[in-house]
Parts: sequence; structure tokens; C-alpha cells
Amino acid sequence: MGSANFSDQLQRAWDLSNSQLCVGLDPDLSRFPAEFSHTPQGIEDFCKAMVDATAQHVCAFKPQIAYFAAQGAEKALENVIAHIRKVAKHAVIVLDAKRGDIGATARQYASEAFERFDADALTINPYMGTDSIEPYFDFPDRGLFLLCRTSNPGGSDLQFLDVAPGEKLYQRVAKLAHERWNPHGQTGLVVGATFPAELAAVRKIVGDMPLLVPGIGAQGGDIEATVKAGRNSKGLGLLINSSRAVLYASQESDYAECAARVAEETKLAIAKYSR
Amino acid sequence: MGSANFSDQLQRAWDLSNSQLCVGLDPDLSRFPAEFSHTPQGIEDFCKAMVDATAQHVCAFKPQIAYFAAQGAEKALENVIAHIRKVAKHAVIVLDAKRGDIGATARQYASEAFERFDADALTINPYMGTDSIEPYFDFPDRGLFLLCRTSNPGGSDLQFLDVAPGEKLYQRVAKLAHERWNPHGQTGLVVGATFPAELAAVRKIVGDMPLLVPGIGAQGGDIEATVKAGRNSKGLGLLINSSRAVLYASQESDYAECAARVAEETKLAIAKYSR
Repeated sequence: MGSANFSDQLQRAWDLSNSQLCVGLDPDLSRFPAEFSHTPQGIEDFCKAMVDATAQHVCAFKPQIAYFAAQGAEKALENVIAHIRKVAKHAVIVLDAKRGDIGATARQYASEAFERFDADALTINPYMGTDSIEPYFDFPDRGLFLLCRTSNPGGSDLQFLDVAPGEKLYQRVAKLAHERWNPHGQTGLVVGATFPAELAAVRKIVGDMPLLVPGIGAQGGDIEATVKAGRNSKGLGLLINSSRAVLYASQESDYAECAARVAEETKLAIAKYSR
Repeated sequence: MGSANFSDQLQRAWDLSNSQLCVGLDPDLSRFPAEFSHTPQGIEDFCKAMVDATAQHVCAFKPQIAYFAAQGAEKALENVIAHIRKVAKHAVIVLDAKRGDIGATARQYASEAFERFDADALTINPYMGTDSIEPYFDFPDRGLFLLCRTSNPGGSDLQFLDVAPGEKLYQRVAKLAHERWNPHGQTGLVVGATFPAELAAVRKIVGDMPLLVPGIGAQGGDIEATVKAGRNSKGLGLLINSSRAVLYASQESDYAECAARVAEETKLAIAKYSR
């Protein structure tokens, strides 16, 4: 990607695409249109078709590594990322892997994400604390999105616990990310769209830090509430992710047009409440 | 593996091996003895050599997937696991991947661990809560080890926060694992050896649940304190992991004998304080 730092790259992606939509690449074999085979090659072809259909409407793509790994399709993932570099040069590539480990092991995960797969950014799980995050700082030009407040119901089991008067665990994660875990301006957070009030609470803690926001579309989050709660001082700052609502907009032969249409509509709905 | 459930399999592993030692397979190229190449084949050969050298002294092997993934060596990991099945039929295979995601994505990770790699157990990160753990219950004969209190200094950043009077976050994880996240008797916890008092606190919460305990050897945890704090009512219940101290006991041509000697000594030191 060659940019000096991740926040510049992200700003350029927002500017060039006029979009804060991130399309998640979750290739679920059981939902493929009939023409794609249930093989690593089929996974690659399906993802490339989705990239081609939606590239002009997105600031970012977010491949979810589990769908590739379950099928032994790591090479397909490499090829999909190379394809994004070719046809969507503006787009940021976030590898969604939610890695979490320490020291030498975290360095291996960083190498997997940033060297093997050449992703621009990686999602990370903060449960193991500082020394599970620091090793990624050795790649200061790449982005890190730490899980903060996730969009699933069970997210509350731990994240919503009070860890100090008036402070919940996800707010502590936001505070640590803002104050201690961002020496190179490369760090962002994952905050679900299903809880706009909490998105606003996180935005208040972290200034203009980028937020990766899953949970619209299939998971039911409301776009207006999400953007109003999450936008930063420039009316930007979000990567609002939609996966299934775009990828599986149609399982018939019109899958590409339908995906493009949903992506465009979502982009415009987001833009309505952005800068 | 063919056993009816994970706790039976684990009990048989302890009985047949007379050991609560788990050897972690973290193939770090920079520490390989000279005869192993820095390729997926070299990784496979090194891990097989370590399995052969230590099999009679362990109840379990714990391959750390990051070291394989960084090198594109998934096939080597498959082959190493198949090798363990052949030469160490008694040993439990714990895939250390610390996966953490929800719903359909978690099911993909379960498929990666239990179908693609055929591991007996998987490490999981609980930060996303109940619906990030439930999908693994669809594999009721496999084991789950949830991160609870990790052995690294930064583990305290979140895990040691008070979430209720007299209750820290890691204790809440232990409580949830015991009360809600173990419908098939397949669940265990990861608790570091570096904090024996906290290991004892966890043991008090979870009854006889198996505990995977990293942090002895290279990380400095004390074996006597660890076993006394962590053993269950039967004087067992532990998979005490050592990785680097065994694997890199020597980088000279005597690497196999040295690994075997360290594994045997560690096994005996653990047994001294077990049943």
C-alpha cells in the first residue's frame, strides 16, 4: 500500500470513495449463488465478484479469515487481497481475525496478517492486555482495531460489567486504547452499531479515532442513529461494516447487481448523516 | 480420537502417561537447531522430532497455530497432528488459537479446529461472551479452554479489574465457565502459573474442571506452588504447559535428548505434588 501511516491511508480512502461503508467478505458456502463451487476456488471467485460489484461504493473491505481457514482456503484469501489491491486501489483492507496472544506469538500473528496476507489493518482482542497489543506496534504503518463493545447480545456478559464507578469494561478498553495503546496513531476500535448510546460514549473517550462498526444490515443496527452517535469532529471516522446484507442480497443470477445496489444504498444512507 | 467425551479422554491421558505435562509446539524458526530448514517442511520435521522425543512424558501437546500460520504452514500443522495421533495415541491435542468470534463465524473457527485440524480441544477468548462460546457446544466431544487469567504482566490490565465487590474479571469468567458455559462437561480454563494465589482462587470456583496452565519454564512460574494451588480433589486436573524450555533445551545436535530430559524432569517435578 506504500502510505506513510494508516490514518492518512484511511483519510484518503474516505475522500476517494466518498463512503464510510466497509464490505465484509464472509464467504459462507451455504449461501453461495449456484454458479460458485464449494471449493477454495469457488470462495476466491465469489469474493472477487463481490469486490468487483461493490468496489466503487466502499472505503474498505474486511475479509473474515475464519471462512477461509475452515476450508483450507488461505491461498484464496491471498488472491482476494491481491485482487482488491488491483481493482480497488483506494480501499483499506482490514483482516478480521480477532487475534489475541502475547510476545513472540503475537509477533507471529502480526506477521501472518501484515506480511503473509499483506492486510492494511487487523482486528485484535484486548483481553490479554498491553503485551498482547504492543507487538503490533512494530508495524507502525498498519492499522489495529481492538474489540471494545461488540454487537452481539453476549457482548454484555463481560464488556458491560462495571470496573469502576461509572465506568464499564468496554469504556476502560476505549480509554486504554486512547491513552496507552496508540503510540503511532494506528489504533482504532470495534464498536457495534446495535448500541448507539455506547458508540457515542466511546466516541467521547477516543477523540477522532477510527471506529469499525459492525451490526448494521443483517444484525439490525440503525444507520442514522449509528452515524450520528459515531461520527467524529470531521463528520467522518467510521468504517461501517455490512457483510451478509450485501453478499447475499440475491442468491440468483443477479447477485452482482443486487450486491452493488445494496452497497450503494447503504453508502448513501451513511453519507446522509456524515460530513 | 473416538472417545465419548473430552473429560474421559483427558482422564485416560493422565492415567496412561502418569503426567500432567503438556508440551507446547511453538516452532520458532530463529531458535531451530541448524539441521532444520526455515520452511514449512522444516517446521513439520522439527515438531515431529519434538513429539517423538517427549511423547512418553506428556498428557498433551499444544500446537500454537500462529507459528504455522505466519509461515503458510497449515499443511505442516495437519501433518504434525496426524503424527501425534500415530506415535502418542494417549495424548490430548489442544490447538492453541485463542479464537473469539460469534455465531456463524465461531462455527467456522470450530470447523477449522475440530474438522480441518482434528484437534481434541481449542483455546478460546471469552471477551465476546456467551454467543461466542455456544457455537463450540455443537462439538460436545471436544474440549474448550477459555482464557481466564493469563500469565503475562499485561493480563492484569483487564482481567484483574474489580467487576463486583470482591470479584475480579477473571473470577467472573471462571464463574460463567462453571455455571453457564459447560453444558457437556467439555470446558476448561487457561490460568497462568505466574499467579498461584489466583490459580487457587479459580480452582475454588470451578470444582474439578481441567485447567491449562502456561507460564512455567521460560516464563518463570514455580512448579510446586502451581500444582499445590491448581490440583483438583483427585490431585489431578492440570495440563501444565511448557513450550520453549523443552523445545529449545538445546540448539545443538543433542536437541532431542535435551528436550526429552527437560520434559521428563518437568513431568517428575509436577508428579511430586500430584496424586
